[in-house]
Amino acid sequence: MTYVQKNIETASDKYSAGFTKGSLALPPAKKYLILTCMDARIDPAAAFGIELGDAHVIRNAGASAVDGLRSIVISEQLLGTTEIAVIKHTGCGMLTFTNDDAYNIVAKNLGPEAEAELKSRNLNFLPFPDLEKAVKEDVEFLRSTKLVPDTVAISGWVYEVETGKTRRVV
Amino acid sequence: MTYVQKNIETASDKYSAGFTKGSLALPPAKKYLILTCMDARIDPAAAFGIELGDAHVIRNAGASAVDGLRSIVISEQLLGTTEIAVIKHTGCGMLTFTNDDAYNIVAKNLGPEAEAELKSRNLNFLPFPDLEKAVKEDVEFLRSTKLVPDTVAISGWVYEVETGKTRRVV
Repeated sequence: MTYVQKNIETASDKYSAGFTKGSLALPPAKKYLILTCMDARIDPAAAFGIELGDAHVIRNAGASAVDGLRSIVISEQLLGTTEIAVIKHTGCGMLTFTNDDAYNIVAKNLGPEAEAELKSRNLNFLPFPDLEKAVKEDVEFLRSTKLVPDTVAISGWVYEVETGKTRRVV
Repeated sequence: MTYVQKNIETASDKYSAGFTKGSLALPPAKKYLILTCMDARIDPAAAFGIELGDAHVIRNAGASAVDGLRSIVISEQLLGTTEIAVIKHTGCGMLTFTNDDAYNIVAKNLGPEAEAELKSRNLNFLPFPDLEKAVKEDVEFLRSTKLVPDTVAISGWVYEVETGKTRRVV
């Protein structure tokens, strides 16, 4: 058993011992979803004030709305959420490379079979060079896609990993 | 301003006032990633014992490894993680519909333009009828894709929303 696996089992014992929320409903009680980054420096529940059971939380590299679209549509259309907050963050890894950089690193590290799989899956790493612009573009994408109705409230934010603050962009 | 937006601002003030972790490094300190569901009833930091800065957390509808592949490759190849824990959960929404159900609901609710966009994006909602089988299949997918090297340790788990426990499947 690895350190990580042991850590999950230890956390499970501790968390379940004091667990009192076993009867929450499947649909989010407060009917909203947070889309944020997978970054290790973000604790969405604490930083964004999410009570257990209240909101969907989608996380991927860079808080990409395009990459998150499948989950967003499921949240809105099948589980009744009516509001989206897109929260990217300072110091994001997605600001540090281009799609070509990432392709070349994967091809070099993992070889031609991996490169072929990247191509066959048409994988786009979706990096961005400008943080606030990327927030605005993702909000605009969600406002323009026909898969999110116009009745859904959409806002865009930046979380500062240096200060713990979350500030509104759009 | 909506309730949700106000709630984020209130949480930001409170969280940043006591924030002391402003100097954490970009790559996850413990070099692992958790892939879990966007479900509102999951608090990964508390339930899985993740300290701030230690691990990437990817969340999407159903904890899908296929849907998360872009983020997983970025985590492994660009940000140095070496271990993955896939954690699906009891009572998951993805157990309650088929891909055709979801298509039909979206088309009915949002109309022909949305249906056309679903098709042009080739969106697959990736539901699953059997929870433990889905965990095993996702772990198998990650072990077989050339985009995740064989050196990466991969485990599969089920989180029980009724008890707060996380149990190993594979």
